[in-house]
Amino acid sequence: MSAKAEPSASGGPASGKITIADIATEAGVSVPTVSKVMNGRTDVAAHTRERVEAIIRRHGYQRRGDDRSRRSTLVELMFHELESAWALEIIRGAEQVAREHGLAVVMSESQGRLTPGHGWLESVIARRPLGVIAVFSDLSATQLAKLRARDIPVVVVDPVGEPGPETPSIGATNWNGGLTATRHLLELGHRRIGMIGGPERVLCSRARVDGYRAAMETAGLTVDPDLVRYGDFHVEAGFKQAAVLLARPDRPTAIFAGSDLQALGVYEAARAAGLRVPQDLSVVGFDDLPLAEWVGPPLTTVRQPLQDMAAAGTRLAITLARGEKPEHRRIELATTLVVRHSTAPPAP
Amino acid sequence: MSAKAEPSASGGPASGKITIADIATEAGVSVPTVSKVMNGRTDVAAHTRERVEAIIRRHGYQRRGDDRSRRSTLVELMFHELESAWALEIIRGAEQVAREHGLAVVMSESQGRLTPGHGWLESVIARRPLGVIAVFSDLSATQLAKLRARDIPVVVVDPVGEPGPETPSIGATNWNGGLTATRHLLELGHRRIGMIGGPERVLCSRARVDGYRAAMETAGLTVDPDLVRYGDFHVEAGFKQAAVLLARPDRPTAIFAGSDLQALGVYEAARAAGLRVPQDLSVVGFDDLPLAEWVGPPLTTVRQPLQDMAAAGTRLAITLARGEKPEHRRIELATTLVVRHSTAPPAP
Repeated sequence: MSAKAEPSASGGPASGKITIADIATEAGVSVPTVSKVMNGRTDVAAHTRERVEAIIRRHGYQRRGDDRSRRSTLVELMFHELESAWALEIIRGAEQVAREHGLAVVMSESQGRLTPGHGWLESVIARRPLGVIAVFSDLSATQLAKLRARDIPVVVVDPVGEPGPETPSIGATNWNGGLTATRHLLELGHRRIGMIGGPERVLCSRARVDGYRAAMETAGLTVDPDLVRYGDFHVEAGFKQAAVLLARPDRPTAIFAGSDLQALGVYEAARAAGLRVPQDLSVVGFDDLPLAEWVGPPLTTVRQPLQDMAAAGTRLAITLARGEKPEHRRIELATTLVVRHSTAPPAP
Repeated sequence: MSAKAEPSASGGPASGKITIADIATEAGVSVPTVSKVMNGRTDVAAHTRERVEAIIRRHGYQRRGDDRSRRSTLVELMFHELESAWALEIIRGAEQVAREHGLAVVMSESQGRLTPGHGWLESVIARRPLGVIAVFSDLSATQLAKLRARDIPVVVVDPVGEPGPETPSIGATNWNGGLTATRHLLELGHRRIGMIGGPERVLCSRARVDGYRAAMETAGLTVDPDLVRYGDFHVEAGFKQAAVLLARPDRPTAIFAGSDLQALGVYEAARAAGLRVPQDLSVVGFDDLPLAEWVGPPLTTVRQPLQDMAAAGTRLAITLARGEKPEHRRIELATTLVVRHSTAPPAP
């Protein structure tokens, strides 16, 4: 949508010259009802709201006085959970770009749900941010439509699923990261390599596991399904799944832990089993959180440029809010292997 | 200040019935000028602004339509830097209380400066948050006065200095924490105990160092000034200062690191010097960040209830914004020693 829609020569749907009264007539409701819908009020019947929003979307209505200079100075950063140093990297990237643009970051959390609940949308609409950055979360089609109807662009950073074609997103090359991590272990001479993924239904995690499989299979190895396990990216899951792997008589000599926090759990499981890292067990993480450098031993991991991803997502939201056309609507930033001291050749 | 100021019987200064016109007359300026000052506009001469603000403060002017229900839904969280897992604990505590009250947290960062610059205040005033929570930062007297003139309460969490008597604050029992950490090392049999404080001028750090001194001296030991060093609470400073301590021929057998991140730096310096933790060197941190549990070896540390401190600060700001009188305006929450595996008796 352009910032100032001109009457289109074709008389097409995006003329931008429709008034609130026109919308009210077309929807068969009163002008105040249309206003209520546009202001995100909740005292409108759901079916009325849907009808009005559909008409607004179809006509690309431009609010009067809605020049961009009067817009919000807030960028909304929506997390599914504020649980780890991972979230802080995202916040830092978003905050830096927001500050450069004279904006501030407002945060909301969906309390562990991957799709935020109903109250969330109402509060966002009341705040009228310039744009919404959904981190590791999916918005429902209805939520996306309601934000679009209010000219609030949504960008997904590190998508959980496959965002619809209309939703811009910034991710990382997860599949390549999984491939590189596993190839590093193969090159050191490991053959029995365990994999601990994140949640099975989360695409970024699946991509890492698929990269692991691809590395194993292109090396002529068969993936032992018993060595592939799933956690939730947190320390405890890494501990639990590694404990299962390390209790096997044919335990793996290396584990690709799927996230740095899970790698710390693997460290703990190794300590509990009396195994030394890396002499008895090599461990590779994923993320390269600041702590990866400071744990004992410093962790070999796949660097995911979280700050850059959040910064790119924030820039994209600002571009879209200005009504400008971004150069790219889907970006995957490169991951890189950072070799530290948690990987070594297997014991002879 | 009460939420609804009644005309005071004594005719005293807090009548709350003064109009903008009265303020304009008293200040000798026009009504639009008073409005500009009240709306945080910058196109008013500094001395005019000061005069108007002084009158507003003196009379406790209550804006028309300024019933609390119309107030902002934002709580402003101001950091001096968004640099570590420490910041995330604060964010989580604030976000949880904000969410419980139907509010959202907006963040700003003073980019490492302990007192935010000029642009910060203007942007806060434009956002009109319900309240400001300054984390590990000092606001200047002018900044405090300007926020007060706009009925935006300020609460300081983990104060750097000694906030003035008008500024409510939430801290932790830093002195007790330093005492307890050092006593733990003394009880294990250590006598040469190194101390790495945070920045020397920061009061919470001084309190920890003073607690260390008190423990040493009440145990009948003299503090060797060469064993007391200062960093900036980050990993690199811990590494650098510990390297100096461990290079001494009479190196300490234990180090109280002043923060968890500095403790990680001490770990790294010990590794570099070929010393094992805890067999050759005991280490105690301060904060109990989530990572303290997962580093190798798990870190003995003084738990500072960061989430609780931020939550208490946010609650206090909400109470003040409602015009209610809080039970306490200054709180120090207790620290507790968490013994893990980084401390042991000194080698015989």
